[in-house]
Amino acid sequence: MNEGPYMDHAPTIDEQAGHCFGCGPANPQGLHLVFTLDPDALTSTAVVKLNRVHEGPPGYIHGGIIATLMDEAMSKLNRPLGVMAMTRHMAVDYLRPSPLHHDLILTGRHVQREGRKLFHEAELKNLKGLVLAKAAGVFIVLDESTVAAAKASGRF
Amino acid sequence: MNEGPYMDHAPTIDEQAGHCFGCGPANPQGLHLVFTLDPDALTSTAVVKLNRVHEGPPGYIHGGIIATLMDEAMSKLNRPLGVMAMTRHMAVDYLRPSPLHHDLILTGRHVQREGRKLFHEAELKNLKGLVLAKAAGVFIVLDESTVAAAKASGRF
Repeated sequence: MNEGPYMDHAPTIDEQAGHCFGCGPANPQGLHLVFTLDPDALTSTAVVKLNRVHEGPPGYIHGGIIATLMDEAMSKLNRPLGVMAMTRHMAVDYLRPSPLHHDLILTGRHVQREGRKLFHEAELKNLKGLVLAKAAGVFIVLDESTVAAAKASGRF
Repeated sequence: MNEGPYMDHAPTIDEQAGHCFGCGPANPQGLHLVFTLDPDALTSTAVVKLNRVHEGPPGYIHGGIIATLMDEAMSKLNRPLGVMAMTRHMAVDYLRPSPLHHDLILTGRHVQREGRKLFHEAELKNLKGLVLAKAAGVFIVLDESTVAAAKASGRF
């Protein structure tokens, strides 16, 4: 198991802010995903090209990393919705092997909201438009007191 | 996006064998999961302790990495079943935040087989036995000609 260089001091708030495995610029082993958000259509889009660090079957992206891409594409939709929300459920369909070393298009789409539940979807396609994997997710909006307590603790 | 040190030469078969992001010892940025398999009960078990490299919300494991743990625990069950199989579908329930820096217990369990479909389940618990996340997966057994072709290509 990894016990890397991040254990030698308590993280500062600045470090915490950018340390997400999926999108944090301060995480040297992260995916460094950069999304374009459309606040009207409530969609997220990123170009993804992974190498052997994130391999599953030889030559292809690990299924768990594909799930990570889906989780990221969907969770980024919480930003234009103006909420903080946590993944509660995610279902991923692996339709075709997703190759390493190729540009792939990752998209997220907000579907609907029911109270504190947000329903999002995501897809990973190749440049020909072929869908390699798709996902549906349910995210739970954090209530204001939870967000306030988290912010007061310096952890968000 | 990562374009790390693995692009400077074509991978050898030895490198490929151990390069899985979840369990490959030759992947320096992998999770290096080590499972104990019970071939009679058809279960897999690993102790997991992750650090900030795999962070999602501050202090907690990224949801995509949790999905990776689930995928690994379930896919390892294909080994005692004597098959090669690919993840076709995975559904993850995130029940409680899963903390970094703590030993957690990851288990997989084979449920049933229907033709080429294998149904597996997985759980992530803390040391008190509290379930933090659980998953169900469907894996498709590769037919012999596919496995033979993959082996002949030197890719498995």
